Amino acid sequence: MNTSRISLLASLLKKYSLDLIVLNPGPSMFYFTGLQFHLMERPTLFILNSRGNAAMVLPELEVLKIKTTLPEVDCFTYGDNPNSWSAVIKTAFTGYDLSAPQIGIEPNRMRYLELNFIQQSLTEAQFSSAGPLISSMRVQKEQSEIESMRTAVNIAQQALKNTLPLIKIGMSEKNIAGELIIQMLKAGSDPELPFPPIVSSGPNGANPHAEPSDRKFQSGDTVVIDWGASHKGYFSDLTRTIAIGPLDEELRIIYEAVKNANRAGRISAKPGIPAGAVDRAGRKVIVDAGFGSQFTHRIGHGLGLEAHEEPYMFSENEMILRPGMTFTIEPGIYLPEKGGVRIEDDVVITKDSCESLSTMDRELITISGN
Amino acid sequence: MNTSRISLLASLLKKYSLDLIVLNPGPSMFYFTGLQFHLMERPTLFILNSRGNAAMVLPELEVLKIKTTLPEVDCFTYGDNPNSWSAVIKTAFTGYDLSAPQIGIEPNRMRYLELNFIQQSLTEAQFSSAGPLISSMRVQKEQSEIESMRTAVNIAQQALKNTLPLIKIGMSEKNIAGELIIQMLKAGSDPELPFPPIVSSGPNGANPHAEPSDRKFQSGDTVVIDWGASHKGYFSDLTRTIAIGPLDEELRIIYEAVKNANRAGRISAKPGIPAGAVDRAGRKVIVDAGFGSQFTHRIGHGLGLEAHEEPYMFSENEMILRPGMTFTIEPGIYLPEKGGVRIEDDVVITKDSCESLSTMDRELITISGN
Repeated sequence: MNTSRISLLASLLKKYSLDLIVLNPGPSMFYFTGLQFHLMERPTLFILNSRGNAAMVLPELEVLKIKTTLPEVDCFTYGDNPNSWSAVIKTAFTGYDLSAPQIGIEPNRMRYLELNFIQQSLTEAQFSSAGPLISSMRVQKEQSEIESMRTAVNIAQQALKNTLPLIKIGMSEKNIAGELIIQMLKAGSDPELPFPPIVSSGPNGANPHAEPSDRKFQSGDTVVIDWGASHKGYFSDLTRTIAIGPLDEELRIIYEAVKNANRAGRISAKPGIPAGAVDRAGRKVIVDAGFGSQFTHRIGHGLGLEAHEEPYMFSENEMILRPGMTFTIEPGIYLPEKGGVRIEDDVVITKDSCESLSTMDRELITISGN
Repeated sequence: MNTSRISLLASLLKKYSLDLIVLNPGPSMFYFTGLQFHLMERPTLFILNSRGNAAMVLPELEVLKIKTTLPEVDCFTYGDNPNSWSAVIKTAFTGYDLSAPQIGIEPNRMRYLELNFIQQSLTEAQFSSAGPLISSMRVQKEQSEIESMRTAVNIAQQALKNTLPLIKIGMSEKNIAGELIIQMLKAGSDPELPFPPIVSSGPNGANPHAEPSDRKFQSGDTVVIDWGASHKGYFSDLTRTIAIGPLDEELRIIYEAVKNANRAGRISAKPGIPAGAVDRAGRKVIVDAGFGSQFTHRIGHGLGLEAHEEPYMFSENEMILRPGMTFTIEPGIYLPEKGGVRIEDDVVITKDSCESLSTMDRELITISGN
């Protein structure tokens, strides 16, 4: 349990007009309590008021997870009959003595399941997003968080280095995606990866979120490899695009445009400017190269305990970048029925500029073929 | 897209007093549409009314995923500026011409994020659980689903067989958990596992949901190994407990009790009886052996596209078992500060009894030591 983070959270509730905050399993619960649960059918809640009184509702069989780590939290446990859960949750909220509380929840995480149980306990409860409050704490990483991310980046880079020599004509996207996972685990990644690797070759690369298929690599393909590892709950998220044999001129042109856009994004990022300015700096390079309409997504997203989190790096985002903010820079160009190129780095805003945690070469690597 | 499942779903809405059903990414969306999205910050919705009119709301960059698979669905796409999402979602619902609709959602899946967007589109909307409706379709598996689960079981079994020879005194829980993942991928598992393997040795085994630690195996330990693989979206979920060197008498006794409870559960399971009867049959063996209070969870849970789904196998559950239902049978005994034993199989209800998809030996395997 991180008592200083919990104290700060409690002290901020009033500022955000909240009486209570209720978290269900996920990155924020982990950030504040150190506890990781899978989000499944059994409701699990962390409850906190502005005086710092904390309670947890959880399944009885999880209680060993918590007894040693959270001695100062009131625990309310239930068995496996769902008919008993409502009463236990009601008891947990009774201690807070609230009639019509304003309850902060995480919109991307809190489900109808838990909302419904809370409403049964506090019939006059009003819900609103605690996203801005929690983000205000999580978005600027502490040094130890940045070091965990750096380790996750290094693990991912090592895994690709170990995988590259295996790539050749005739191997499938799925072969390489599977090998990348194995190499990340061998390089020390935690088992829960941020996402399964994307390996998309030839025309499949035109879909930014393609799933690895049985398609075999052919001469002239670009292969987009988007992968990430995990360390102490923190993620990396990288992309490199390689060539199988020589590329035609159009693919070589878009590779250079994407590489230059990635660099322009990294050079632009610094404290005091809006997040959107990074997108605009990278996007300008691609627009100028004549491929603006083929760069179909924002230039990046925040990264940390979640694969996507604030700051979201879209053009219109006025959120001001601050030291310790961590995000991806990942411009891409997608040519339908032909192929794609994306180059993605993980960066952290420093005192006066930005540092790329990822350091792998961004020049085009060409696999000679057979 | 599975048009026959979607037609059946549409035809059942009225029976459950629903005007619309709205799904967000997850197993049910996959079951009906074949589409898999990660549940992240961008809202993605599948909307269906009782006349079978279907629509999808999704990010523009995902549109290639859908164009080829869902030609008959109205698609509403949005870009990366969150301020634009509400209007797109509103437009998607406009086509349904409803004033105060009753909207069915999945409580374990639908989040405040999507609920809030829907409410902005249909201010008079009332939400209720479509869980029973969806479960009525998903809970009895088709033959092809059972075969996918059988493959997922076989992959998991092969992976443990390949891992067992590596286990010896001095290896850590994390070593073996990592090796199991690698062996599952090599044996052909899809990359998204149902959960990271649990490997809990000695006293750690007393926590049913322990996370693998750096603890090294010692002579006299039980090691609980709970792992599962994935095939075409379907999961396996197995547990075997092994001994490192000879066990003391109490651990040998609980091993036999758990093995007998597992068998009693499997023998009891057949169509026409309540799910709870399987729990009671297994639990009786453990109670009779004097360890009732150390069997701290239900005997199992449904399994399929989710690691936990209906039927939940707790004592009080009156849901009647039917052919094609698939679930785990996993009694366990947990001795605090000493160790645990759990033996878990995946079974399917047949015409007149139950078949275990998992066939690995349930007798105690003792690793000789060094």
